[in-house]
Amino acid sequence: MKTIEDYIVTIPDFPEPGIMFRDVTGVLDDAQGLQMAIDELYKHLQGVDYDVIAGAEARGFLFGMPLAYKANKRFVPVRKKGKLPRETVEKTYDLEYGTATIEIHKDSIKPGEKVVLVDDLIATGGTMRAAADLITELGGEVVKMLFLIELEGLNGRAKLEGYDVEAVVKYPGK
Amino acid sequence: MKTIEDYIVTIPDFPEPGIMFRDVTGVLDDAQGLQMAIDELYKHLQGVDYDVIAGAEARGFLFGMPLAYKANKRFVPVRKKGKLPRETVEKTYDLEYGTATIEIHKDSIKPGEKVVLVDDLIATGGTMRAAADLITELGGEVVKMLFLIELEGLNGRAKLEGYDVEAVVKYPGK
Repeated sequence: MKTIEDYIVTIPDFPEPGIMFRDVTGVLDDAQGLQMAIDELYKHLQGVDYDVIAGAEARGFLFGMPLAYKANKRFVPVRKKGKLPRETVEKTYDLEYGTATIEIHKDSIKPGEKVVLVDDLIATGGTMRAAADLITELGGEVVKMLFLIELEGLNGRAKLEGYDVEAVVKYPGK
Repeated sequence: MKTIEDYIVTIPDFPEPGIMFRDVTGVLDDAQGLQMAIDELYKHLQGVDYDVIAGAEARGFLFGMPLAYKANKRFVPVRKKGKLPRETVEKTYDLEYGTATIEIHKDSIKPGEKVVLVDDLIATGGTMRAAADLITELGGEVVKMLFLIELEGLNGRAKLEGYDVEAVVKYPGK
């Protein structure tokens, strides 16, 4: 019986020397791996009271949408600046080099709504923190942050302190 | 009983004057709309013999992945240049202003495999044509191109001649 880990491809020194890149496309590349990934993420949502699933462009879309479909919830895309056509709120956050800006539609989260944020991987946690800030700004409550993979060595949980963070697969390194 | 069209938000003059932007986030923004969109797309795959679903970054991920999950198929992401960590094949194509380059992993399509390409919307057809060329280059066969929305006035089918193109919702204009 294969596990999710068996489908994750590790690429040393990508995108730069010293980084062990954990490639989720290996999971998607196999019908059984894909089913397993979504089903395992879904298990983490059992007993959770929530209204909406949100995910960040682009890899958050890969996992957030099948989960929303399976859970019969709606899906809110968090996008890079300039892609959403209606009125948005935006947040700029620091990257290793430079900054990035993400947006969500202003009417996509109603005050009091409970939101699950989904992404493929938690590394430094910067994007998820910015997404959570936007949801909070609109009056929503992030009740869980759910990842397929966690790179524990990057300590993304520090940036997400106060949130309920879960991951299906954990790697001790970076 | 609502239809998919009821969930599609039309935004006049976005991103530029004269364009009627058809916003699929309105479909995702409602649990029932989201279910309906995936189920309708799925209906178009009944009786189709295929091995893989492929979708282009980022909105092709939104619809391709839940379809792959539902159909118990694997999913191949078509990405913008520089995002995929393993060996790729790439294709550059013309946009209205400038060019874009997309990639897929070289080992993601095996010779003889039958591929369904999925996207939210067919406009000019440029991205889908480039994606189909990459799949063909690797020995795959694009057996269907499936869209939630078709903007018939942009005549994307001309660029996709020879392919089996289907859309759930069709708008006569641009």
